Amino acid sequence: MSKELRDTGRVEAFSDGVFAFAITLLVLNLKDPTLDSVVSKPSLLQGLVSQWLALFALVTSFVTILIMWANHHNMFTYIKKTNTVLLFLNGLLLFFVVLTPFTTQLIANHVSLAQSPDAETAAAVYSGDFLLLGLVWTATAVYCFRNGLVVGGTRATRRYLVGPFTYGLAFGLSFYNSLASVILILGVAGYFVVYANVFGKES
Amino acid sequence: MSKELRDTGRVEAFSDGVFAFAITLLVLNLKDPTLDSVVSKPSLLQGLVSQWLALFALVTSFVTILIMWANHHNMFTYIKKTNTVLLFLNGLLLFFVVLTPFTTQLIANHVSLAQSPDAETAAAVYSGDFLLLGLVWTATAVYCFRNGLVVGGTRATRRYLVGPFTYGLAFGLSFYNSLASVILILGVAGYFVVYANVFGKES
Amino acid sequence: MSKELRDTGRVEAFSDGVFAFAITLLVLNLKDPTLDSVVSKPSLLQGLVSQWLALFALVTSFVTILIMWANHHNMFTYIKKTNTVLLFLNGLLLFFVVLTPFTTQLIANHVSLAQSPDAETAAAVYSGDFLLLGLVWTATAVYCFRNGLVVGGTRATRRYLVGPFTYGLAFGLSFYNSLASVILILGVAGYFVVYANVFGKES
Amino acid sequence: MSKELRDTGRVEAFSDGVFAFAITLLVLNLKDPTLDSVVSKPSLLQGLVSQWLALFALVTSFVTILIMWANHHNMFTYIKKTNTVLLFLNGLLLFFVVLTPFTTQLIANHVSLAQSPDAETAAAVYSGDFLLLGLVWTATAVYCFRNGLVVGGTRATRRYLVGPFTYGLAFGLSFYNSLASVILILGVAGYFVVYANVFGKES
Repeated sequence: MSKELRDTGRVEAFSDGVFAFAITLLVLNLKDPTLDSVVSKPSLLQGLVSQWLALFALVTSFVTILIMWANHHNMFTYIKKTNTVLLFLNGLLLFFVVLTPFTTQLIANHVSLAQSPDAETAAAVYSGDFLLLGLVWTATAVYCFRNGLVVGGTRATRRYLVGPFTYGLAFGLSFYNSLASVILILGVAGYFVVYANVFGKES
Repeated sequence: MSKELRDTGRVEAFSDGVFAFAITLLVLNLKDPTLDSVVSKPSLLQGLVSQWLALFALVTSFVTILIMWANHHNMFTYIKKTNTVLLFLNGLLLFFVVLTPFTTQLIANHVSLAQSPDAETAAAVYSGDFLLLGLVWTATAVYCFRNGLVVGGTRATRRYLVGPFTYGLAFGLSFYNSLASVILILGVAGYFVVYANVFGKES
Repeated sequence: MSKELRDTGRVEAFSDGVFAFAITLLVLNLKDPTLDSVVSKPSLLQGLVSQWLALFALVTSFVTILIMWANHHNMFTYIKKTNTVLLFLNGLLLFFVVLTPFTTQLIANHVSLAQSPDAETAAAVYSGDFLLLGLVWTATAVYCFRNGLVVGGTRATRRYLVGPFTYGLAFGLSFYNSLASVILILGVAGYFVVYANVFGKES
Repeated sequence: MSKELRDTGRVEAFSDGVFAFAITLLVLNLKDPTLDSVVSKPSLLQGLVSQWLALFALVTSFVTILIMWANHHNMFTYIKKTNTVLLFLNGLLLFFVVLTPFTTQLIANHVSLAQSPDAETAAAVYSGDFLLLGLVWTATAVYCFRNGLVVGGTRATRRYLVGPFTYGLAFGLSFYNSLASVILILGVAGYFVVYANVFGKES
């Protein structure tokens, strides 16, 4: 194995670790609802049902990060060498991935069917993190294509714009309807799963 | 190494990370018993003994996830290529694995020798998570065999039904006797260790 | 790469993951001392100094797990195939590794220069976990040598007895002097680092 | 693959796990600000803004650990065999890496625009951890070069002194101005990204 391939291999492995830990840390956002409410103790069932949004935010973040991982995986299949800029962009990408357990917690704690200023803030932080992730992602892809770091692979440039555009939309929407903003982000994930074939070619 | 083998290799590595991390996060369910009880301070020994169920739930989840990992490992040994559906099913599998530290915490907090509605809810959520895991697992195995993603390996179809069937039984049992439900799940793990040879062939 | 080598490789990788996570989770035992004490607020410096035992327990556990990992690493270098029993023993080993962040927390919370029943309980649980780890470790090594799973490598049987023997001593000592028990465990780690050459041959 | 290369490979993989996990655990320092303040409940936006230092400390630690990982990665590319001393030094390195989520939490909780004795303690612990990391790092590099463990690669000895020197400066500064000390550490990271080409050669 050449030194260059070994390099990209270790960057992939490190990134995979961060993706896998961040996705697993999301579970810390689920809490036993009977422990929080000191005053009136609801039944566990009532507590879990009233926590539906924490589960919904968990699913949204889980699917979104999983798809980002799959995309990352696909892109690195074609990347044959790394350089300073690529590793800086990759580090930035991982930074926003690492933030998701925190932004997901804000959604779980503040967004509900009723609107409130805190819900808007939480949804703006949540969608803002994904917007930045999408922008860094697109920048990374464009950089790799422009600088010949990629061997083979198709330039799915248009598809790469779906992320930043829809996350931007979700960010704007978060100031008007926080729940709709989260639903839109889940919809983007659904789009990538069903239509954009992020997981590679069918056999 | 072909691109296809490299693909399955990276999916395996990512899944392994999630399995290993989820299994380690289970330890966060064990807490210093003297810190929780503000009013009457029991001795550490009394506190640990009264926490026996948290340890029991930890053992049950640890063994179950370890066996799932070993099965996952066995299956991927024979899977030679991946596609969208397989990766989606694998993602669903990992989602229910990620939930186990939370469902285990519910057992530790609510199930005891005395029955209560909260204990039934906790046991239903706990066994329900494993039931869904078992169903996704069986679906994944069936899908791989039907679509020729597997090269070599025997179709242990009957064995794959043990999981969903017994976890379904544990789910039903959880509404009558929560502790018996958890014991049944530990029994399933014991069955897989001793009889079903999940860890591969003896040398 | 043969299927057998690939098998042991994946068991190694999974075990490494659990070792690395458990060693990193130890840091959660260090807490900002100014957050805990609601009544009298000490300065951060005083708080950190009074937390010296938490750091001492962290160092002891960190070094012990690191040496266990190095030993595990050495042993698997010579193991050429796996079977059910080996994987079961390895799972048991990982279980006791996963418990260490919890047992370390008990030491940090209860052991101090003054003796107390809780300190003895904490030290007994802490040394008991390492005793069980040492016994499983020795059983694993003996099993591999007896069943020809190991190719090459020397039978350092006498060295493998140092662990269970000294951890048993630390367990007995814990009922008389909890702090001395922890110091003995750190001493065992020091012995392995300096004399037992666990990290392999000098170049 | 020779046994020696396999050895360094597994040390790399274990170290990568600890680096990746520590970097992801940093996110636990970000907390929902509305949960902490029991008395006066600020809006989420106000709370997040007043938490800017927690984010700043997170960024500083994230970038610093990422660069240490990249350096570690570069060095191990050239290390062809391991021995006891190298593994001991690597373990010490990982120990100080594991401490960073804790030291980062101290910064987030205590440093602010106003000076206080606690802020100085926090900044001293934070910069002290990086100083020790830098010293161990330099010792490791010097040891590898002197003992022929490195094949190829240039002896960038002068560059290796930048870390210990500037972290020493930050440690000294922490007793006078805690915030400036953290900013200096972020500056060191910036220097390594932009000038020292830690991420390897440009293509």
